[in-house]
Amino acid sequence: MDVIEDMPANVVSRILRNSDPASRSQINQLLNYPKDSAGSIMTTEYVFLHPDATVEESFARIRKEGMDKETIYTCYVTQNRVLLGVVTVKRLLLSSYETRIRDIMETNVLSVNTHEDKEDVAQMLNKYDLSAIPVVDGDNRMVGIVTFDDAMDVIEEETTEDFEKMAAILPSDKPYLKTGVFETWRSRIPWLMLLMLSATFTGIIITKFENALAACVVLTSFIPMLSGTGGNSGSQSSTAIIRALSLDEIDFSDMVAVVWKEIRVAVLCGVCLACANFVKMMLVDRLLMNNPEVTPVVALVVCLTLVFTVLCAKVVGCTLPMAAEKIGIDPAVMASPFITTIVDALSLLIYFFFATHLLTLS
Amino acid sequence: MDVIEDMPANVVSRILRNSDPASRSQINQLLNYPKDSAGSIMTTEYVFLHPDATVEESFARIRKEGMDKETIYTCYVTQNRVLLGVVTVKRLLLSSYETRIRDIMETNVLSVNTHEDKEDVAQMLNKYDLSAIPVVDGDNRMVGIVTFDDAMDVIEEETTEDFEKMAAILPSDKPYLKTGVFETWRSRIPWLMLLMLSATFTGIIITKFENALAACVVLTSFIPMLSGTGGNSGSQSSTAIIRALSLDEIDFSDMVAVVWKEIRVAVLCGVCLACANFVKMMLVDRLLMNNPEVTPVVALVVCLTLVFTVLCAKVVGCTLPMAAEKIGIDPAVMASPFITTIVDALSLLIYFFFATHLLTLS
Repeated sequence: MDVIEDMPANVVSRILRNSDPASRSQINQLLNYPKDSAGSIMTTEYVFLHPDATVEESFARIRKEGMDKETIYTCYVTQNRVLLGVVTVKRLLLSSYETRIRDIMETNVLSVNTHEDKEDVAQMLNKYDLSAIPVVDGDNRMVGIVTFDDAMDVIEEETTEDFEKMAAILPSDKPYLKTGVFETWRSRIPWLMLLMLSATFTGIIITKFENALAACVVLTSFIPMLSGTGGNSGSQSSTAIIRALSLDEIDFSDMVAVVWKEIRVAVLCGVCLACANFVKMMLVDRLLMNNPEVTPVVALVVCLTLVFTVLCAKVVGCTLPMAAEKIGIDPAVMASPFITTIVDALSLLIYFFFATHLLTLS
Repeated sequence: MDVIEDMPANVVSRILRNSDPASRSQINQLLNYPKDSAGSIMTTEYVFLHPDATVEESFARIRKEGMDKETIYTCYVTQNRVLLGVVTVKRLLLSSYETRIRDIMETNVLSVNTHEDKEDVAQMLNKYDLSAIPVVDGDNRMVGIVTFDDAMDVIEEETTEDFEKMAAILPSDKPYLKTGVFETWRSRIPWLMLLMLSATFTGIIITKFENALAACVVLTSFIPMLSGTGGNSGSQSSTAIIRALSLDEIDFSDMVAVVWKEIRVAVLCGVCLACANFVKMMLVDRLLMNNPEVTPVVALVVCLTLVFTVLCAKVVGCTLPMAAEKIGIDPAVMASPFITTIVDALSLLIYFFFATHLLTLS
């Protein structure tokens, strides 16, 4: 670390220039830019121009310096390292040779701070279709640029992380086949363990209603279908919301609109599923497979449970990721596995509620 | 459709220039480029240069024509519309005015066909860090370019589609809040219905082993934990594989390496989970909650089931997406919900196998 900090700027700059984004990121981290910050992925290879230079002088400078630079098409106008504006080569080409840079530069420049999250920076480049964005320090002094190709890499990396978190895997940086067996195990076991142990609650619920199950054994056979459908309904909502959050399509203020929408979708889905399931239970389970235990009342219990499970699943599925975002937890963690565990317990409670109320009456 | 086809090229070109990528895509589709093809997202706004022009003449051309173009920094060298090479403005700036384009152009040009899948094109731009890629027709005549900002939009769109497919949602093009309730319902109900009906198999399995469950009612209380852990294990593997496939990190030829790795990870995870679960069942369920039905043999049945369920889940989770890719189905469809449904049935079969063999002996 000290080794790099003591190096002259031009040496560091040379190392940075000759390195791929991954090792550049490592070096930038050594220079005290936090991991996942704009500073950690920026390159210092940009062309800067003086505001009082003419277009002709600027072209000379680009010709002389541009050879090594990562991008020359957007030049940054700085004075005492403070960023004053940008000028594109397109603009330079369309201007006369005597024009001063100061007169043609664009002063309304979008820039980011070194400490800004690299994912936000990448999304910004994507949103505004920029090929590069300048990075400035606390005193508005320019220290580097983040280019679109590095932004694309960041987006790819962060998407992979989202996928991993949503499948209850701790994120890793390495490609699948390059990750060792122990490392893969280490990234997968914590959530598996946590979710397995939290399934203790579903066990307790079933044990509590053991008598109901013993009185009507056929009820057991619908438990996997109910928890499966609940889990799928919940993960549809949570995935849609997590993705919409990460694309900035929605935020916490949309909570009411989102929940209201999910409730209506849930009712539609729940009623459809319940009707189909009622027909299936009457035709397949009762008639075709000749199971006399599948009475219309049992079917009613299962179908009512379906409607309310889907409703709960969709509401839990949309609220948890938004709440997580609000309190600063990555919403991707609130995905299928987490939701499924909660919905499993909820669906059993709903099931036994209807079973004990409707079946003792019949 | 005919209206657009009859328009002079410059009129169409003007429409295309003034439109955002989404409506450009619609217009390109009207021009008979298939949906999701390179042709459907390309722009015709590029600068082309003649191979025999000098650098000076080329700069004059760029100054005259470049104003309106989407990108001027990479110019395409064409003769009778056939793509001969590319030359960057950087290269032009570093060359003397009299140099002929033919002598400085890069002839080793990566290009794509109009019919190529837009996702592949976007990945190519990303992989080679290109700011634009030329699109040619069957006769190598240049018809347009795809730029990095459109590629980033494509990647974002396709990622959203992957997320949706993996959560058993039919892909939609619209942002979350812009999609109506009925539309959302239509995209979610088909998979929910299919998965619910396929859960019939788990119902049949449980009905078949009703006597075993009646003889040892406590077994029921571990079903949600077992199917939950199986589902989570499977979705970890399938998500890791689906992502690796979509990033081209692995393909079908890696099947053996992938399965071998997943087996080792599964054994490690399974054994850890089983040990933790054994301790938990003995301490919490038997001692703390004072449930005499939770005998060491019952715990053994549950723990053995855990090990083999995790193993099956991880093998199914990694093979199905790879097999899907091989036969031309999008592997994203083979994600959690699909795997969970299969693993649910498998875990029950394993559970009842151990239960009937070990519990009748005790």
